[in-house]
Amino acid sequence: METMQVTFLGTGTSIGVPVIGCDCAVCQSTDPKNKRLRSSIYVKTEACCWVVDTGPDFRTQCLRENIRRVDAVLYTHGHMDHVVGFDDLRRFTFGDVELPIHATKACLDDLKRMFDFAFNGENRYTGYIKPAPHEIDGPFRLGNCTVTPLPVTHGKLETIGFHFQMPGGPGFAYVSDCKTLLPETVEALKDVDVLVLDALRFTSHPTHMNFDEALAAREFLGARRTWFTHFSDEVDHEKAEATLPKGVALAYDGLKLEI
Amino acid sequence: METMQVTFLGTGTSIGVPVIGCDCAVCQSTDPKNKRLRSSIYVKTEACCWVVDTGPDFRTQCLRENIRRVDAVLYTHGHMDHVVGFDDLRRFTFGDVELPIHATKACLDDLKRMFDFAFNGENRYTGYIKPAPHEIDGPFRLGNCTVTPLPVTHGKLETIGFHFQMPGGPGFAYVSDCKTLLPETVEALKDVDVLVLDALRFTSHPTHMNFDEALAAREFLGARRTWFTHFSDEVDHEKAEATLPKGVALAYDGLKLEI
Repeated sequence: METMQVTFLGTGTSIGVPVIGCDCAVCQSTDPKNKRLRSSIYVKTEACCWVVDTGPDFRTQCLRENIRRVDAVLYTHGHMDHVVGFDDLRRFTFGDVELPIHATKACLDDLKRMFDFAFNGENRYTGYIKPAPHEIDGPFRLGNCTVTPLPVTHGKLETIGFHFQMPGGPGFAYVSDCKTLLPETVEALKDVDVLVLDALRFTSHPTHMNFDEALAAREFLGARRTWFTHFSDEVDHEKAEATLPKGVALAYDGLKLEI
Repeated sequence: METMQVTFLGTGTSIGVPVIGCDCAVCQSTDPKNKRLRSSIYVKTEACCWVVDTGPDFRTQCLRENIRRVDAVLYTHGHMDHVVGFDDLRRFTFGDVELPIHATKACLDDLKRMFDFAFNGENRYTGYIKPAPHEIDGPFRLGNCTVTPLPVTHGKLETIGFHFQMPGGPGFAYVSDCKTLLPETVEALKDVDVLVLDALRFTSHPTHMNFDEALAAREFLGARRTWFTHFSDEVDHEKAEATLPKGVALAYDGLKLEI
């Protein structure tokens, strides 16, 4: 059975933790699990390695994890904290290499608007990023992995998560920015083996699940193992984890899962 | 005499140093002066504090230097390594605060295209960035400081540096991305007191000055004290500094000048 190695590059919300200029206990904490770069994961399989989202910390995250191979990039949506590291992908398109960029049409439109110099075909030199856009309109393959997009709501925006399935292996889902799951996502995630889910904070938020909402979703879906992610500075790692039921834990920057 | 405190937030080229996946001696060096985030400076005066450029490392740089006040933002140009940290400026527009953004028309157009959700007036809530664009078309004031834009060429692009002058104080110029100085910039920089100048590397580059070009410019201008910046991984701090004449030194991340 071929496995997936998943590394959490970041588990923070849009402004990261610590927050600039914030004196709260979590932002001033010395617990390394309370240091959160912007949310992203790196997935490694034998045939293909990919990253989900490239926020502003992408270079820092690559250096920390010594990432030397990225064969594809997947985007959940076009918000700044998930895309603005795009330019640093150029290190993975050295020479003639084109980098497949998988995103919904709405997100590709955002990327093309923001990074038009990369998509307009006029700057395809050796050291620069050469993206090959792939519009997501259903399941697709990355190496031997079947990837299924998972539409969710994120405020007024519809974003996607991803379900990853290696042949004969357990299913793994990553849903980082989500208020509610759309019906086809509920269907795809029924009894999912490993679920990574947005759980921004304890108090309610208009565009993200809080802990109660994420716990309810996980129970409703019957997920076997659940990791929460995309935390604000309301969440002290140690204290928050102590409140969680069996089978649920908090992801943290640098966490590695073998799935 | 009122002074300026200048902090170098970053002194690296577009991809930073170390470069992702690079095994060269500089990228693998343990000398902290060979660790370079993307180029930017923070200038503090009593009446006004501002940052020049906000690359992807802006949040990291704010945390490292414990920056708690930004009254204005100045941009040299719209390249990714100088602007994509824009979203993290939201920490400095909390409440009703509008943040003055000073840039040329071309650069403001880039910013508005990339960050349209910030400029379109539809997302002006408490925690989000509220930019107040100011088109640079000549000298302007920040607190008691007179700021003069310095047009330079940067490949096909015309970018700007800045000359900062406090009443009765020495002049300070920052020119981070530059191949040649345009005539009005040469005029403004004649006998400048403190000059910070692009010196990407030793070998030639189509859009940046190399060490020889920067040394020649500094001598031609008659700068009293010169700091080089915006280095690639060709530049080992200690070795490169040993080659420089008196009055010229290499800036590094975290360097502070009192001017």
